[in-house]
Amino acid sequence: MGVDAVLPVVLIISIFSLVVAGALARQVLAADAGKPEMRDISDAIREGAEAFLRRQYRTIAMLAVVAAAVIFGFYFYNRGVKNIAEMGSGTAFKVTLSFVVGALCSGIAGYIGMFVSIRANIRTAAAAMTSLNRALQIALRGGAVSGLTVVAMSLLGVGGLFLVFNGLHDYQHVPLQIVGFAFGASFVALFAQLGGGIYTKAADVGADLVGKVEAGIPEDDPRNPAVIADLVGDNVGDCAGRGADLFESTAAENIGAMILGIALYPVFGMGGILFPLLARAFGLLATMVGVLTVRCREDEDPMNALNRGYLVTTVLAMIGFGISVRWLLRPAGRSMAHVHQWYLLGAGVIGILTAYAFVWITQYYTEYKYRPVRSIAEASRTGPATNIISGLAVGLECTGLPVLAISAALMGAYWCGKMGLGGIPGAGLYGTAIATMGMLAPCAYILAMDTFGPITDNAGGIIEMSRQPEAIRHKTDRLDAVGNTTKALTKGYAIGSAALAAFLLFRAYLDEVVKITGVDIGVDLTRVPVFVGALLGATLVFVFSSLAIKAVGQAAQVVISEVRRQFKENPGIMKGTSKPDYARCVDIVTVGALRQMVAPGLLAVLTPVAVGFGFKYLSRYGQPGAESVAGLLMVGTIAGILMATFMNNGGGAWDNAKKYIESGLFKVDGVVVGKKSEPHKAAVVGDTVGDPFKDTAGPSLHVLIKLLSTITLVLAPLFII
Amino acid sequence: MGVDAVLPVVLIISIFSLVVAGALARQVLAADAGKPEMRDISDAIREGAEAFLRRQYRTIAMLAVVAAAVIFGFYFYNRGVKNIAEMGSGTAFKVTLSFVVGALCSGIAGYIGMFVSIRANIRTAAAAMTSLNRALQIALRGGAVSGLTVVAMSLLGVGGLFLVFNGLHDYQHVPLQIVGFAFGASFVALFAQLGGGIYTKAADVGADLVGKVEAGIPEDDPRNPAVIADLVGDNVGDCAGRGADLFESTAAENIGAMILGIALYPVFGMGGILFPLLARAFGLLATMVGVLTVRCREDEDPMNALNRGYLVTTVLAMIGFGISVRWLLRPAGRSMAHVHQWYLLGAGVIGILTAYAFVWITQYYTEYKYRPVRSIAEASRTGPATNIISGLAVGLECTGLPVLAISAALMGAYWCGKMGLGGIPGAGLYGTAIATMGMLAPCAYILAMDTFGPITDNAGGIIEMSRQPEAIRHKTDRLDAVGNTTKALTKGYAIGSAALAAFLLFRAYLDEVVKITGVDIGVDLTRVPVFVGALLGATLVFVFSSLAIKAVGQAAQVVISEVRRQFKENPGIMKGTSKPDYARCVDIVTVGALRQMVAPGLLAVLTPVAVGFGFKYLSRYGQPGAESVAGLLMVGTIAGILMATFMNNGGGAWDNAKKYIESGLFKVDGVVVGKKSEPHKAAVVGDTVGDPFKDTAGPSLHVLIKLLSTITLVLAPLFII
Repeated sequence: MGVDAVLPVVLIISIFSLVVAGALARQVLAADAGKPEMRDISDAIREGAEAFLRRQYRTIAMLAVVAAAVIFGFYFYNRGVKNIAEMGSGTAFKVTLSFVVGALCSGIAGYIGMFVSIRANIRTAAAAMTSLNRALQIALRGGAVSGLTVVAMSLLGVGGLFLVFNGLHDYQHVPLQIVGFAFGASFVALFAQLGGGIYTKAADVGADLVGKVEAGIPEDDPRNPAVIADLVGDNVGDCAGRGADLFESTAAENIGAMILGIALYPVFGMGGILFPLLARAFGLLATMVGVLTVRCREDEDPMNALNRGYLVTTVLAMIGFGISVRWLLRPAGRSMAHVHQWYLLGAGVIGILTAYAFVWITQYYTEYKYRPVRSIAEASRTGPATNIISGLAVGLECTGLPVLAISAALMGAYWCGKMGLGGIPGAGLYGTAIATMGMLAPCAYILAMDTFGPITDNAGGIIEMSRQPEAIRHKTDRLDAVGNTTKALTKGYAIGSAALAAFLLFRAYLDEVVKITGVDIGVDLTRVPVFVGALLGATLVFVFSSLAIKAVGQAAQVVISEVRRQFKENPGIMKGTSKPDYARCVDIVTVGALRQMVAPGLLAVLTPVAVGFGFKYLSRYGQPGAESVAGLLMVGTIAGILMATFMNNGGGAWDNAKKYIESGLFKVDGVVVGKKSEPHKAAVVGDTVGDPFKDTAGPSLHVLIKLLSTITLVLAPLFII
Repeated sequence: MGVDAVLPVVLIISIFSLVVAGALARQVLAADAGKPEMRDISDAIREGAEAFLRRQYRTIAMLAVVAAAVIFGFYFYNRGVKNIAEMGSGTAFKVTLSFVVGALCSGIAGYIGMFVSIRANIRTAAAAMTSLNRALQIALRGGAVSGLTVVAMSLLGVGGLFLVFNGLHDYQHVPLQIVGFAFGASFVALFAQLGGGIYTKAADVGADLVGKVEAGIPEDDPRNPAVIADLVGDNVGDCAGRGADLFESTAAENIGAMILGIALYPVFGMGGILFPLLARAFGLLATMVGVLTVRCREDEDPMNALNRGYLVTTVLAMIGFGISVRWLLRPAGRSMAHVHQWYLLGAGVIGILTAYAFVWITQYYTEYKYRPVRSIAEASRTGPATNIISGLAVGLECTGLPVLAISAALMGAYWCGKMGLGGIPGAGLYGTAIATMGMLAPCAYILAMDTFGPITDNAGGIIEMSRQPEAIRHKTDRLDAVGNTTKALTKGYAIGSAALAAFLLFRAYLDEVVKITGVDIGVDLTRVPVFVGALLGATLVFVFSSLAIKAVGQAAQVVISEVRRQFKENPGIMKGTSKPDYARCVDIVTVGALRQMVAPGLLAVLTPVAVGFGFKYLSRYGQPGAESVAGLLMVGTIAGILMATFMNNGGGAWDNAKKYIESGLFKVDGVVVGKKSEPHKAAVVGDTVGDPFKDTAGPSLHVLIKLLSTITLVLAPLFII
């Protein structure tokens, strides 16, 4: 088949995926929706989540409109300048349109993820009353709706814009125009993840501090006025936020890889540009099969079932990857040096193995089977201070192995690229791009597992709150534990792919600069302005994390005051004779979280812009802003990867150290030290500290890393003029 | 005067400084040594500190001998290789000798600092019984012994080796041979700071957790068996460790600036190479005057007196700086473009102002007059978890302003250099070197203030433990509070100068590579191996911090067990009828701390070596190891600056949030919330978490940053061959 068939194949697979997602959604919705008392709770969660999303989207839409206007203004104002003029007519319009479409799709991706999850939760709970397998399937298929939709939409968006802007003929410029799509997606994702992350942890920390610590009532106790807000938070943070996050990842990385493909046009022709789309489309097909094969025995660990599905998906994705390489990555026509396709496939395999390595490392650092989490539990014996110290130490330590894995993957893929393409300039880098595509091939399945997490978490909460029998609770607890693991794994996976993709996005940025200026700038840290850019990039990561964490603290204070007020003014709540005002709590967190998300979001967006323009005007130092921004981008990415890993895994380890003590497996001198013991109280402190780490700052940093890349891609022409 | 006079002047000033330091020491020792019950305590502290240092030096000496043998072996084995051969005959011997001398001097610097401080403590305590001014003067002059000795020794070492190796004639190579001196100094400093830092916090955390938290006895209570170990810790961590730290800073930065001077030989001749030594020597004279002018009224805040002395020192140092510029930084002989000395002086002023900026920013983030510390106290109201979260947020946030200050200083000094030297290649960088020299000019005074901290801390402990009257305790408390501030300030200053000096050391490394290979490599992050080096550099900082923190936890566990054992086996201790076994505690911490310092120390030393050699053998990628190591060095430095600032200031803020609550100034709804309240308990948790941050990991990171530079300077020829 010729290259002409690629885009149609990609678009057809994408649309087919949407159809399958629709069918899965219908199947989930058709399932039994449980008892009335369960439905009451689930309805409250649904209303709260939808209300939050409505308000959040309104705020984000306003910010996005401003951003779109600014982008359009800049491009339009400078349309006569040489390098913008060369991007073709209507560039201002096309970039802005791409931005708007990207932003819209990102919003829709988040919404759909949440739409299904807030309906799948109750159905999972209901199914758990009869069969573990059934509950597992509903939760996973609910998650798959989100996974399939997100990836399919990103392919449709990128492929569609490419087609509409006539990319098949103007392949030089169109990828540079549709970077707006990636920026739009990451712009929305940043605020979605920040807002959702702040919401979920403010509600969680607030509910815990007043409920568990002050009033001494258990988690998910219906007497706690913040308990619904807490359950809402799982959906808006994990589903909507992560959905938008992974949407922008797939979009940004596709576009970045396509831009790299332009540089290799003399080798592969259009095939090199379209390769990323095809590889991803085959990944979608693999995911569908993988999801549908998942089933588990009633007495089995559900994690094993999910792992089998992951394996099926990976193997199929690998085969699809091989077909894509064979089809598209071969010399275009006439004279070309050797292309050794096995090496290129090898780079893809490196990517897939890297995904496995990250999943394994994350498990090692966050599961209580292993030394790190146990060392935190051990340290809890001497109180909260040593618990915190040892959790911080674990978090800092756990950056080591992932970085070694990424380093090995980068070097290996670089080598494969060089060998596979016979040393053509840029060959090594294309190798790393292929590895990234390999790592992202099973992305839709990973996203399904991720959304699985909040669905089962909610299902557990519904069962708990509606006081169902112990045996059922036991089932949902098992699912919930699996959900915690999958949530941690997907975060590891997301940061790993971000690290691998970083290179691809840097190179895309630099290729764009070359195209505009004709000069291949390096990013030479020995030059003072570049070093300063780098220093500022790393600092951005620290200060951004601080703002995100502080935002949780401030929003949580509001929840705490409200819960205290309700307990005080209505003593019937604690006696169980009157119902707390859940809606007011939901409302208060919504307002608080949205107010708090603006500062860190704007800091992230404005810093690269300020550095770019600032250094442009300081260019008497002989440096265009472009190189300082590249320094900011690259070192900011390095710092972001490390900080996100620290926060995600540190937070996960604290959480599971607490769970380890609660599980009754933790013994001192042969005696079980469990719930309500002093070490447990210390572990609760650690868990609370870890919450904003792993669910607010960490995931927001994933988005920040990508946002730095996409914003510099969009604004590159403006830093240089 | 000609340039020939410079070295004699420098050496004479250095020797004179040593004489003055000796006179100050004699004056301090001649002071009244207090009552017998106070002497008992001070003797115990002295014995413990000396025992620790003896054992520590034995361990470090063994490690240093191995390192010296390895260095000699490498250089000797490769003596026939072109670029080593070109460094002149006997290079292997000279580099190794420099290393040994540097290591010895560093050890001596640490020992002298401690020698005086463990004798000044009791005399400060005794003086406090009559006069605040007298106590202040004894403590500061005791500190000045250390400050003057450290700087004078570094000048004598560098200047002496330069003279002995005949640098005046072979100026091209001798600075590259005496980099061994800087590496020796930082090698010893790393272990000294790590060992001391682990000791001091293991003893502190251990004493607090069992004493304050479990047994409910106050700090410095003589019934606590770990209390002497705690007081010993202040000396070995702050005096010996910081002494070695600042010794290696001054040595490394002098040598780095001299190497930069080589590049400007065509402009300034020998003057540019010797300038750093002269500027520093004048700083010594300024410090002597500054220290001797300090006196305070009995009712005055002692901090004001110290600040006046700092101002005097700064002004005099600035004048000396101007003389140095005028004398040495002028065109050498024949034809040279314009040299505008005012711009060069301007770069120096930028350095001095940067020192002020860092001191101010550190105060803002760590004193309870300001918002950040108060926000932590506020967060303590909802328990330890929110205290920790808000402390972490403050720590992360406080990286912002220092980085802006450093960025502005770097850009400003770069500009001054360009303007002052009329755009000669390397002019801008020499500007940043001059700024570094400016920042370091008042270094000896800063070091005196730093050592002031543990002396007054100890004095307070002695007064407390020997149960002296309230009025005297009040005086030592005031001095102790000032000591806490000066300790925080000097850490801010140390990290600021490290950041500014980083550039100078990078450039020295690259100049060395140019000299060896003839090629001016950049540090281009867009190349995969360089990026991987950079990634590994940043990760080293995270993992090193983890190991340092964990080491404290593990050593503290040993203390806790021992204190519990003594309480259990000898109930008379708590009743006050029998004396605890202080010596055993001291002994146990010593062994524990020394065992724990080895792993992080070796990680820091071996990582750059492994990366250098690893990438050298991967050089099929077309990259010599040198560039990857440069990536590691630069991005490791960026990460180190940020992490150290985070840890130093975060730890300081937690400490002072606790002190704020204890001070009785913290009110909720108009009611004082003070000691023993729930918020206070929460604040104690934060303080304990901050301890290993600010006294172990943070200060060790200062040394790590420099060590990365010096080790790469020494090993550069070997990465390239």
